[in-house]
Amino acid sequence: MRKKVEEMLNMLTLDEKIALCSGADFWHTEKVERLGIPSVMMCDGPHGLRKQEGESDHMGIHESIKTVCYPSASALASGFDENVLEQLGEALGRECQAEDVGMLLGPGLNMKRSPLCGRNFEYFSEDPYLAGKLAGAYIRSLQKQGVAACVKHFAANNQETMRMNGSSNMDERTLHEIYLPAFEMAVKEGKTRSVMCAYNAVNGEFCSENKMLLTDILRKKWGFDGFVVTDWGAAKDVVKGIRAGLNLVMPGGYGTHEAALKAALESGKVTKSEVDAIVADVLQFIFDYQEQKQENTGIDREELAKLSEELAVQCAVLLKNDSCDEKVLPISTEKKAVFIGAFAEKPRYQGSGSSHINANRVTSALEAAKKYCVAYAKGYHAETESADEELVQEAVKAAKQADVAVVFAGLPDSFESEGFDREHDQLPDNQNRLIEEISEVQKNLVVVLHGGSPMHLPWLKKVKAVLCMHLGGQQVGAAAVRLLYGQDNPSGKLAETWAKKLPDTPAYLNFPGPDGIADYCERIYMGYRYYDKKEMDVQFPFGHGCSYTDFAYSDLKVEKSTLSDTETVRVTCKIKNTGSVYGKEVVQLYVRDLESSVDRPVRELKGFVKTDLNPNQEKQVEFLLDKRSFAYYETKIHDWYVESGDFAIEIGASSRDIRLREIVHVDSSAELPYHYTLESNVGSLLKTAKGRAVLEQLMLPMSKGEEESTFDVLGEGAAKMQQRMFLEMPLGILESFGGMTREQLMQIVQDLNK
Amino acid sequence: MRKKVEEMLNMLTLDEKIALCSGADFWHTEKVERLGIPSVMMCDGPHGLRKQEGESDHMGIHESIKTVCYPSASALASGFDENVLEQLGEALGRECQAEDVGMLLGPGLNMKRSPLCGRNFEYFSEDPYLAGKLAGAYIRSLQKQGVAACVKHFAANNQETMRMNGSSNMDERTLHEIYLPAFEMAVKEGKTRSVMCAYNAVNGEFCSENKMLLTDILRKKWGFDGFVVTDWGAAKDVVKGIRAGLNLVMPGGYGTHEAALKAALESGKVTKSEVDAIVADVLQFIFDYQEQKQENTGIDREELAKLSEELAVQCAVLLKNDSCDEKVLPISTEKKAVFIGAFAEKPRYQGSGSSHINANRVTSALEAAKKYCVAYAKGYHAETESADEELVQEAVKAAKQADVAVVFAGLPDSFESEGFDREHDQLPDNQNRLIEEISEVQKNLVVVLHGGSPMHLPWLKKVKAVLCMHLGGQQVGAAAVRLLYGQDNPSGKLAETWAKKLPDTPAYLNFPGPDGIADYCERIYMGYRYYDKKEMDVQFPFGHGCSYTDFAYSDLKVEKSTLSDTETVRVTCKIKNTGSVYGKEVVQLYVRDLESSVDRPVRELKGFVKTDLNPNQEKQVEFLLDKRSFAYYETKIHDWYVESGDFAIEIGASSRDIRLREIVHVDSSAELPYHYTLESNVGSLLKTAKGRAVLEQLMLPMSKGEEESTFDVLGEGAAKMQQRMFLEMPLGILESFGGMTREQLMQIVQDLNK
Repeated sequence: MRKKVEEMLNMLTLDEKIALCSGADFWHTEKVERLGIPSVMMCDGPHGLRKQEGESDHMGIHESIKTVCYPSASALASGFDENVLEQLGEALGRECQAEDVGMLLGPGLNMKRSPLCGRNFEYFSEDPYLAGKLAGAYIRSLQKQGVAACVKHFAANNQETMRMNGSSNMDERTLHEIYLPAFEMAVKEGKTRSVMCAYNAVNGEFCSENKMLLTDILRKKWGFDGFVVTDWGAAKDVVKGIRAGLNLVMPGGYGTHEAALKAALESGKVTKSEVDAIVADVLQFIFDYQEQKQENTGIDREELAKLSEELAVQCAVLLKNDSCDEKVLPISTEKKAVFIGAFAEKPRYQGSGSSHINANRVTSALEAAKKYCVAYAKGYHAETESADEELVQEAVKAAKQADVAVVFAGLPDSFESEGFDREHDQLPDNQNRLIEEISEVQKNLVVVLHGGSPMHLPWLKKVKAVLCMHLGGQQVGAAAVRLLYGQDNPSGKLAETWAKKLPDTPAYLNFPGPDGIADYCERIYMGYRYYDKKEMDVQFPFGHGCSYTDFAYSDLKVEKSTLSDTETVRVTCKIKNTGSVYGKEVVQLYVRDLESSVDRPVRELKGFVKTDLNPNQEKQVEFLLDKRSFAYYETKIHDWYVESGDFAIEIGASSRDIRLREIVHVDSSAELPYHYTLESNVGSLLKTAKGRAVLEQLMLPMSKGEEESTFDVLGEGAAKMQQRMFLEMPLGILESFGGMTREQLMQIVQDLNK
Repeated sequence: MRKKVEEMLNMLTLDEKIALCSGADFWHTEKVERLGIPSVMMCDGPHGLRKQEGESDHMGIHESIKTVCYPSASALASGFDENVLEQLGEALGRECQAEDVGMLLGPGLNMKRSPLCGRNFEYFSEDPYLAGKLAGAYIRSLQKQGVAACVKHFAANNQETMRMNGSSNMDERTLHEIYLPAFEMAVKEGKTRSVMCAYNAVNGEFCSENKMLLTDILRKKWGFDGFVVTDWGAAKDVVKGIRAGLNLVMPGGYGTHEAALKAALESGKVTKSEVDAIVADVLQFIFDYQEQKQENTGIDREELAKLSEELAVQCAVLLKNDSCDEKVLPISTEKKAVFIGAFAEKPRYQGSGSSHINANRVTSALEAAKKYCVAYAKGYHAETESADEELVQEAVKAAKQADVAVVFAGLPDSFESEGFDREHDQLPDNQNRLIEEISEVQKNLVVVLHGGSPMHLPWLKKVKAVLCMHLGGQQVGAAAVRLLYGQDNPSGKLAETWAKKLPDTPAYLNFPGPDGIADYCERIYMGYRYYDKKEMDVQFPFGHGCSYTDFAYSDLKVEKSTLSDTETVRVTCKIKNTGSVYGKEVVQLYVRDLESSVDRPVRELKGFVKTDLNPNQEKQVEFLLDKRSFAYYETKIHDWYVESGDFAIEIGASSRDIRLREIVHVDSSAELPYHYTLESNVGSLLKTAKGRAVLEQLMLPMSKGEEESTFDVLGEGAAKMQQRMFLEMPLGILESFGGMTREQLMQIVQDLNK
């Protein structure tokens, strides 16, 4: 604990300390004027600053200051680029300083368990490594500006249905392998100063009261030294929360939680030193901000708008660009194009809820394309699902007359939002209808998609190209035009699998679950881990994205062929731009355990590098793998563990487009404990000298009969059966078959465990 | 308790009672000569009598008497015919009486959770209703002969890996909807006198010690009044077992369990009256058998062999019989056929393990086809997987020269057995290779399959017909020939879905599970329930089977359009043979809940009728539906519950070939309890007058702000969000947002629950 905090704790009264554990109002920490402890403001984020000065809420309902809206998280993650997040983090940090905001509530690190989660647009990925790496970059650059990040929602807050009190139930391995690593990386690599605990429960224990999460894992396992704030309204029994590791209850101002805490202190349910420890973390945050407060930091929102546009360009994913005959994209400036669809004029660029930014301006594709020869037809009404025949016919006519038709389609606000889950993955009927009709008259058909989640594309085979802009921020229209006309080359890759159909998705049978109980029955097989293991076709795989150029992969080198799990290993390969235009490629590294005694995903992302190349240019990219690259979470030791054996290092342009492959052998430096019981099987005894000695002594009366039996006469089935039966026979069965007493057998077990 | 049992309990010493709780040896109950209590023999079954007179074992290793081997359970279930099971039950009962066997260990009622379970050939189906109905018929007719049935393995014994001490873990609803109903029907409809508890645990509690299973469910819920015997060697802590509802420990003869029980009695851990109750059930069985013992019951094993053949005919499933040009089956007697494959000469007709029958003779297809013009080529060696080029070429040559080629293929003994699970669903390479080669030279290609589980058929599109004989018993060859040549018309239907590929199967990601822990993550979505819900293509659906004739379905009539769940409803429809030969059709009735607040399978089998028809003949078939036809297992009341609403009655020729459909409305007579807590949501309060009154009183301070907000300005997303947020807001949140204390809120909850 730093000196100033310690001094303050000595000077603060108990009531003041209690007050510091809750907010002063909707957005501020409590101040203590007599000691010069200021009130610090927190604001919703994470892809823009939602600073409220009037009526307050946590749902994007009331006004906030006018500022820049950047692409939302699902877009940002598709950049597959730490640099993108660094730029955003810095910009937001500067805005916060200018607006006197000490903490931005973000980034959101929940996993995209189902494409139906209404809030997925605020989350990065279905892959914890990708989400964690990107979070680290965002947090570091935000915090470099003296503003605290607040990763949310810890943990397993992966649906909106029963959002305030559902329970996410899963086994220990799934929690640690899928739902926690992004948070872990935010703590260990990003050094986030704050963690927001989620509304929901994990395995029946509310996150705001969950000692396993807030103390055992977050602080003890990961070494987190910041403070934990509730999601707004997520506090339940505040006394239980404080004892579990919660620091700050938000919002504040009612005095109810303070009264409860005071009563608990008086009755001895909470000790003063417990409260001191909790308050210390809050004070540390306040003093840190005070110390790092920058004065007179002007920001140029025009410049930030340009950044927003640049990020949208970097993150867009070209899902498809048919090469059967001439590619339709990029559109030649000589071609006569028509932009069709209400979203061309008024794009959907962000989602509803606490992340909702009061954008100072919005650039539509139509506006951005003024310099080109572009006609426009509205095609559909964005706010309804039924087709307007007049608009359809007008659009069809315009499409007929053009060389290229670009339909701007996507999900309306009412289809995805914080606060409720999606009911399906379809586009509005009127949009699908429009695209089908246009495909009948115009073969050069491009669809530009807006939306924070995968969409079902029934007309996919009938269009030549699909460009996904996600929820691309206020400049999304300008970014789309830059990409459509080849001013920039698309380089994003999907951070989330697009399934062939909704019932194919991993959590389909269990999402959102009955009565607020979400059983994570798919376990570790989420996202591409599921589709790969089940050998399923998908619409667009994780890591997929096209480019206007081509890349050749070669020269995969793994520095060592054998290593211990305590070592790191350097992996390199070469990438060459073999096409005719400048472009960027995301080189992905997956690790595959070739033989394992536990079930593991087919492959897991363990590295990615985004590199830019001029035509004919070649670069070497490098990855560094460590124990975690090969490990799984072993519940026997409640820790990560590498099983000795061969692993494949796969280098791919997507999770389903593996270009290079090498084998490396990793030796484990750890041994798993084994504890014998009456249920220990003969097979496990055979593995140790002690066990074999016991067997030799015991098996005589049992094996007598079997030795005389003639396996070959009985056929292979019987022989194999006997062998397996023998190996899986538990020691305890000798009470039924061998005439040994339970006491004798328990003595043997005791001896074996010595 | 009957009088004789009561009298005996008064006369038996404590040691004698203890002795009666364990077997006398491997196969007999203990006798008490001084009181005239005889020893009764039990024998392995269930598709034949495995009576051992010499060295004893429970794994099919040592010799047993020569007798008739009937089709195994997976074959029998494909008959979809209670009559088939009745005939078998009677035959086995007569054999038992003739051999002085008082109890036959069967039928096996475990569910086919994964096609990889090595012992699936001993189980009926993936559908609990089908398994339960067939079990009932088998048990009733066996027990009519004065011989006890013993349904096994209770419960959830669905894999062989870690068979002796694994744990089948699942939620309450899954256990009751999928894994228990067949046992429940065996108890309630079959009146089985005995239940064998399984080796495995359910949710961590061994079945032999599982009070929930053996007492709470079996005896109290279902009213079972027979006795529970351990699987051979399944006893663990016998004292715990006895207290949980176990009656008889098998095998016996070592005295170890007796000593443990005696010590427990002496120390007071078990009371005398507890032991009395346990012994009473065993005595009842002994006396029942004594009373019903038939003397001098000769049996004619020639006649029983004919029955075995007849059953094999009834149960075979014609998986495919291409109708693009002339159908290849039935084979005209004028055609020159060649039988290819070692199984034509030496069929695989049963599985390894405790059900293994010492068949008094085996009829091969080759032998049975002597009267026809049939050549033979061995094609492959049954015991290896690698192709013998000479055999292949010889077979190809023979196939070329014939009009029709019939390849007899299937799983060798070493591919499926009790004692270990299958590693894959493939046929041996040499068989696949052979079929591929022959398909190149002979378009009239038929494959006859032998095996107890679904097989992957990579060459399916290249062959014209596939006839599945399952493990068809000793007469399987004769049965196959009768069907191939049209002497009989195939009428079996699959009791188990055949998936397109193994990774498609429901439990693929969790079978067999690590370290003996089998998590039933697919929950109630097992078998066709999974494929239907996930909208997946399958190779052959549940209930599928072709015929040499055609059937027309019509006139579906549901007696009432609205009913209460306390009523039954009669459903009828008409079936007409529209083809040119006599045949049997299995008319299947599925129920589909059209709208439900809980997730339910798309459709579930709730009735089936097998009817036989001459060409042009039409018959009416009838079904009777009751509460259980519409109900799901509701964990809130730990019982079956019908949610009021519309249900579709679907009549089909398979689960994917629905021919008729009607809607019926069912009203629930029960109301689910609702208990308010701090986590009760506004939505739940809105449903009652009391709740609405509370809301009116509470919401004023909260709704003030929201009323002023302009939803329409914020767009549909925000409006929908606010509505959902409001409905899902838990009462307890008023501590954070409304300034109410926890005590005030708890008082409100208390009032609501009054």
